[in-house]
Amino acid sequence: MRRYRALVEYDGTAYYGFQRQRSEYPTVQGALEAALTRLNKAPVSIIGSGRTDSGVHATGQVISFDLDWSHGPDTLQRALNVNLPKDIVVYQVVACAADFHPRFDAKRRAYVYHIYQAPLRSPLRRTRSWHVVRPLAMDQMNAAAACLPGVQDFATFGRPPQGTNTVREIFRAEWKRDGDYLFFHVEANAFLYRMVRSLVGCLKLVGEGRWTVKDFENAKNACDRRAVAVLAPAHGLYLEAVTY
Amino acid sequence: MRRYRALVEYDGTAYYGFQRQRSEYPTVQGALEAALTRLNKAPVSIIGSGRTDSGVHATGQVISFDLDWSHGPDTLQRALNVNLPKDIVVYQVVACAADFHPRFDAKRRAYVYHIYQAPLRSPLRRTRSWHVVRPLAMDQMNAAAACLPGVQDFATFGRPPQGTNTVREIFRAEWKRDGDYLFFHVEANAFLYRMVRSLVGCLKLVGEGRWTVKDFENAKNACDRRAVAVLAPAHGLYLEAVTY
Repeated sequence: MRRYRALVEYDGTAYYGFQRQRSEYPTVQGALEAALTRLNKAPVSIIGSGRTDSGVHATGQVISFDLDWSHGPDTLQRALNVNLPKDIVVYQVVACAADFHPRFDAKRRAYVYHIYQAPLRSPLRRTRSWHVVRPLAMDQMNAAAACLPGVQDFATFGRPPQGTNTVREIFRAEWKRDGDYLFFHVEANAFLYRMVRSLVGCLKLVGEGRWTVKDFENAKNACDRRAVAVLAPAHGLYLEAVTY
Repeated sequence: MRRYRALVEYDGTAYYGFQRQRSEYPTVQGALEAALTRLNKAPVSIIGSGRTDSGVHATGQVISFDLDWSHGPDTLQRALNVNLPKDIVVYQVVACAADFHPRFDAKRRAYVYHIYQAPLRSPLRRTRSWHVVRPLAMDQMNAAAACLPGVQDFATFGRPPQGTNTVREIFRAEWKRDGDYLFFHVEANAFLYRMVRSLVGCLKLVGEGRWTVKDFENAKNACDRRAVAVLAPAHGLYLEAVTY
């Protein structure tokens, strides 16, 4: 029996989030465990770096699992991918330390949020980005985002998991433009529940001119969930990378 | 009663092609006619510039329809989009000549085919591009594609619709690279059934080194469907524009 670590890409559209549910609803964790269990011919559980909401995508989710596997990790990767549905793939499968824990050992998580800004909705982009009709002032959104880096209480932007506190350290919070797309890159030691979607929802208000940069800063400093007006939809969000 | 012309973007994943079927299977034409019929409170038929196969996408399909509509075309566009499913949208709705015909009046059709070239399949790209594992020699594919422009018999690459002949004029046939993507741009006065997918399937053989440029040219000159070995999958294909 060895512990393995793998990167996972998934299209979250068809899933009720990453985390396995008691119910019959399909989850990413459930699909990964089903594939591993088929290979192992006995139940296998995985641990993820963190849960993602229903509809959220990942290009760099990290998982670990224990498995009795007599071939190499490359063979394991191929066998897993053959057994996984088309909207999930594993890559970089490696044997790792027996005490490696994807959630507790993570030092940084990086997310990116995609906004598609155009007068009309686009069928081909609909499950991959948030469609925003009106132009957004990216300079103002970046001016507001500039107050985020550092060790701060982010209670305004989300609930903590498992009764921990709401202090987190943000390392990067920055908007970049590429044609009709606006990308919000945010990296932190850890995130509160729905924190990225709350941040994006509030920063969009700044981009629309409905909030000033100061309004955003005041909302953050209020440390109060009720200061958050808008939650950006899940389908624009991607878990990009976890650093250990 | 006036004739209207509109551009249509659709994600073809969920549809059994553009053309309405006698059966209950969902089609793009069926969805557009259902939306128009709801607005009109009486059946409306549309004409498209051409049918696309099941799974093929469009960013610039052209349709026409006759409608008794007392408001402007912009209001019609908005009303239609409210009534359409999320994987179809209409844009540039304009009143046009009463004898405009999207298929018979079309001078050129432009398609683009997306190949995603990477060692591993990507869940987030799976319904938008053809995943090809091995690197492709784009210079060889372009050398082979160079024999396509002009008025020629393309019987090798497809059946003609409605018993017409297999001579078509190709104006452009060119591969371009962008990172992990290869895009095949092809423009012709009209296409045979499955012609772009046949061309891409054969050009990929050239890119893999399984066919020489000369093999490709010989296959074209054979004017024989049996010379085509591979049909590229539908989900990499996009109808981009129709010119009148």
